[in-house]
Amino acid sequence: MQSKKPQDTHVIMSELVLPNDTNTLGNLMGGKLMHWMDIAAAISAQKHCNCPVVTASVDNVSFNNPIKLGNLLTIEAKLTRSFNTSMEVYLRVWGEDLSAQYKYLSNEAYLTFVALDPNGRPRKVPVITPETDEERKMFDGALRRRQIRLILGGKMKPEEAGELRALFIKD
Amino acid sequence: MQSKKPQDTHVIMSELVLPNDTNTLGNLMGGKLMHWMDIAAAISAQKHCNCPVVTASVDNVSFNNPIKLGNLLTIEAKLTRSFNTSMEVYLRVWGEDLSAQYKYLSNEAYLTFVALDPNGRPRKVPVITPETDEERKMFDGALRRRQIRLILGGKMKPEEAGELRALFIKD
Amino acid sequence: MQSKKPQDTHVIMSELVLPNDTNTLGNLMGGKLMHWMDIAAAISAQKHCNCPVVTASVDNVSFNNPIKLGNLLTIEAKLTRSFNTSMEVYLRVWGEDLSAQYKYLSNEAYLTFVALDPNGRPRKVPVITPETDEERKMFDGALRRRQIRLILGGKMKPEEAGELRALFIKD
Amino acid sequence: MQSKKPQDTHVIMSELVLPNDTNTLGNLMGGKLMHWMDIAAAISAQKHCNCPVVTASVDNVSFNNPIKLGNLLTIEAKLTRSFNTSMEVYLRVWGEDLSAQYKYLSNEAYLTFVALDPNGRPRKVPVITPETDEERKMFDGALRRRQIRLILGGKMKPEEAGELRALFIKD
Amino acid sequence: MQSKKPQDTHVIMSELVLPNDTNTLGNLMGGKLMHWMDIAAAISAQKHCNCPVVTASVDNVSFNNPIKLGNLLTIEAKLTRSFNTSMEVYLRVWGEDLSAQYKYLSNEAYLTFVALDPNGRPRKVPVITPETDEERKMFDGALRRRQIRLILGGKMKPEEAGELRALFIKD
Amino acid sequence: MQSKKPQDTHVIMSELVLPNDTNTLGNLMGGKLMHWMDIAAAISAQKHCNCPVVTASVDNVSFNNPIKLGNLLTIEAKLTRSFNTSMEVYLRVWGEDLSAQYKYLSNEAYLTFVALDPNGRPRKVPVITPETDEERKMFDGALRRRQIRLILGGKMKPEEAGELRALFIKD
Repeated sequence: MQSKKPQDTHVIMSELVLPNDTNTLGNLMGGKLMHWMDIAAAISAQKHCNCPVVTASVDNVSFNNPIKLGNLLTIEAKLTRSFNTSMEVYLRVWGEDLSAQYKYLSNEAYLTFVALDPNGRPRKVPVITPETDEERKMFDGALRRRQIRLILGGKMKPEEAGELRALFIKD
Repeated sequence: MQSKKPQDTHVIMSELVLPNDTNTLGNLMGGKLMHWMDIAAAISAQKHCNCPVVTASVDNVSFNNPIKLGNLLTIEAKLTRSFNTSMEVYLRVWGEDLSAQYKYLSNEAYLTFVALDPNGRPRKVPVITPETDEERKMFDGALRRRQIRLILGGKMKPEEAGELRALFIKD
Repeated sequence: MQSKKPQDTHVIMSELVLPNDTNTLGNLMGGKLMHWMDIAAAISAQKHCNCPVVTASVDNVSFNNPIKLGNLLTIEAKLTRSFNTSMEVYLRVWGEDLSAQYKYLSNEAYLTFVALDPNGRPRKVPVITPETDEERKMFDGALRRRQIRLILGGKMKPEEAGELRALFIKD
Repeated sequence: MQSKKPQDTHVIMSELVLPNDTNTLGNLMGGKLMHWMDIAAAISAQKHCNCPVVTASVDNVSFNNPIKLGNLLTIEAKLTRSFNTSMEVYLRVWGEDLSAQYKYLSNEAYLTFVALDPNGRPRKVPVITPETDEERKMFDGALRRRQIRLILGGKMKPEEAGELRALFIKD
Repeated sequence: MQSKKPQDTHVIMSELVLPNDTNTLGNLMGGKLMHWMDIAAAISAQKHCNCPVVTASVDNVSFNNPIKLGNLLTIEAKLTRSFNTSMEVYLRVWGEDLSAQYKYLSNEAYLTFVALDPNGRPRKVPVITPETDEERKMFDGALRRRQIRLILGGKMKPEEAGELRALFIKD
Repeated sequence: MQSKKPQDTHVIMSELVLPNDTNTLGNLMGGKLMHWMDIAAAISAQKHCNCPVVTASVDNVSFNNPIKLGNLLTIEAKLTRSFNTSMEVYLRVWGEDLSAQYKYLSNEAYLTFVALDPNGRPRKVPVITPETDEERKMFDGALRRRQIRLILGGKMKPEEAGELRALFIKD
């Protein structure tokens, strides 16, 4: 299986925020945004593994700037690293008021997907070779984020998470 | 402002998984599930604060058991604790194959919402007083989960997170 | 085939009324409400027969209190009685303005479903044994409502509908 | 206020049955059909009163022939009679398999609407003058159907429903 | 294969313009209108060939009068002519403000469909025999419109388009 | 009003083809594709004029390669030229089978939009200055396409369309 590049998994999605997507104050509902983010990230993962994928986990996501009704939503997704049968995708989400020419970062997130064979069982995926400095930084951080996921999901003990533990006992 | 009870924020949502909600293998897409979870949790938060709310953060969510096309999806939401202007909601999601009489826990999650005044600015919310043992356990854990959120969101330094830090240096 | 209990068929559905669900005055359109009622009732019927079902009839439904945009809609469904291959489900629908803390009964309805085998033909369903006084009252009334349905659907002559006829000639 | 003609309220709606509209056996869900029927009937009522309307009641509806995925659905709606502030609409629904050239009547129904002024309060509607024999028959039957609605809705005592009562004690 | 009549392919579709169908000024978005036009025209084509069809081309469409939120949209479609495996459908679209009793022609269009066999390959369709003067005029014009389509699609050289060429060099 | 660059109006939209978007043979319906194309193009036009826009016309569109269920749809849009109050946008649409790693051009199209002031009346838009050879070629061709639109829309006589006429009488 050949190594692949993050650039080949780059996905851009553009959507307009419509009335049914917003709450009574005219802000995009967080769940609708998560829906779009999941689709953009799943496309990115499928570009890497060339097979169906299923969402395995969504990292802690903070919604910093609400996106308003009628605004343009742009999502950029790119694979950071693959782990045997799973893939981590990094997303950035912007809102944009096209009339006011005001564009703002709404949030960032990491989603993890598992590649599936035709019977719905996990299958191996290609490794990825980062090329730019930013891609390498993302690639390295993926290991730490994976430890947080495993601990928070109850699948790893904190004392086993070497890299993460250093965060708390560095003093 | 009067104290309220978790039971008053209890929400049950039932949905059928339709073709457009699934990927090519017939599994519910993670993003559609997040969409429904967000709505159920937002209703729970609104039952507590009686005002509009906006999603502030979604904790690390793992999708353990895929939910199949045609299955019944049941989401239960209940407020665990409020913090000045924000509220944490605990969700459990079940899938159910009604013909096979097979019901399974799909995942659990914590979502946080901010209460808004009519101008879209944060407003104070009532405190909540847990009544059962499970509610008290959820109430206590909310503090630790909040520290994780603040650290992961870059708004608190790990060394300030007393309760969380103990998790890593207990040995 | 084992007798079952009404409580096992209890379904709660929660939905938010969104812009596309309302008419130009901001009231939930009756047809959208019927759509949600049908899904909630179908789930209830499937919980009883554990097989696919198809809507056979909707009883006379009156919409008393309009439900407003942004309000919470709650539907409760429970099976009242089964008749060989069909099942009657009783529904109550509430609207709720969460900010004003005002909850109101919107309407009640009875829907009937037919259980289907894998070839789409009617199949026998379990009997149901009411347990509470209300469930017994619902169970008894189901016979009378079935006569009305059959007469209004042209499948029974008025003079054959003993229980119903008494309603008109009791004086 | 001028009298109007049933023909001016004639509405034809054509829809294709898509995957999300059907249950797991590929039959159109009853609730989705009710949704379309309500919209077609509301348009018919609005053509008569030229103002917003709200669904007041749906008469007993039987679904006789299931409509299949991919089939064409045709709904015809026409006003039968108006009563001060309300209007009764008669609907016929056909399914059609365009490849097999097979068209079948799925069901008939009567829906009642109330005309609303800009403040959402009932307002008077024009009378209607039937022109054909079929329209006159529909017009006459509307009185009897209204009595059934009022009795079933608990707003009229059976002994007051002269025309309806005759149905049961004609022998 | 028997010749058929345009009247047998007549389709009427009625839709209400809902919030999600409009832009921020409350006008129906052109793309949503094209979506409905395509479905109405595809039904018309299927009524002629009694088999699945796929959109082959959409002629130049001008949107003259914007259709407003809450208005009624009516689309009328009728087949003009068939060409071996393809069919041209003529559409007229009206908007209507039911409260103001104001109806206006929004636009006209020609869509072309190809008939498909069960393997998705083009199949022959019946010829059509126009009956009215208007149908005959539509039938004759179809040849000229087809030449424009083939030239604009790069599948015919301008000098081969006899009828069309006359338009430009008639002086 | 400052001149702007085509690159600033570049829009990329990615969508997955879901069951409800396809006909019974599993091909994306042409109307749904037109819907997405209109939104992508409208965003591109809004990036240029920074105000609301309304679709004025869609040029002759040919659908060459059907896009299949589950495939990825990618639309690229870029402004070619502006004319006082209107803007022409060029679109390319690709389908992609991510598992088979097969990407194909589905179609190209030109859509024209009119810029609107807050009262819904046409307003002037900035001129655009092409920078690359391809942009310049698009810019030059826009004049000829505009003449075709005006002739086909009955707003210009063929003999007035100098550039277009040359196409037919060049021999």
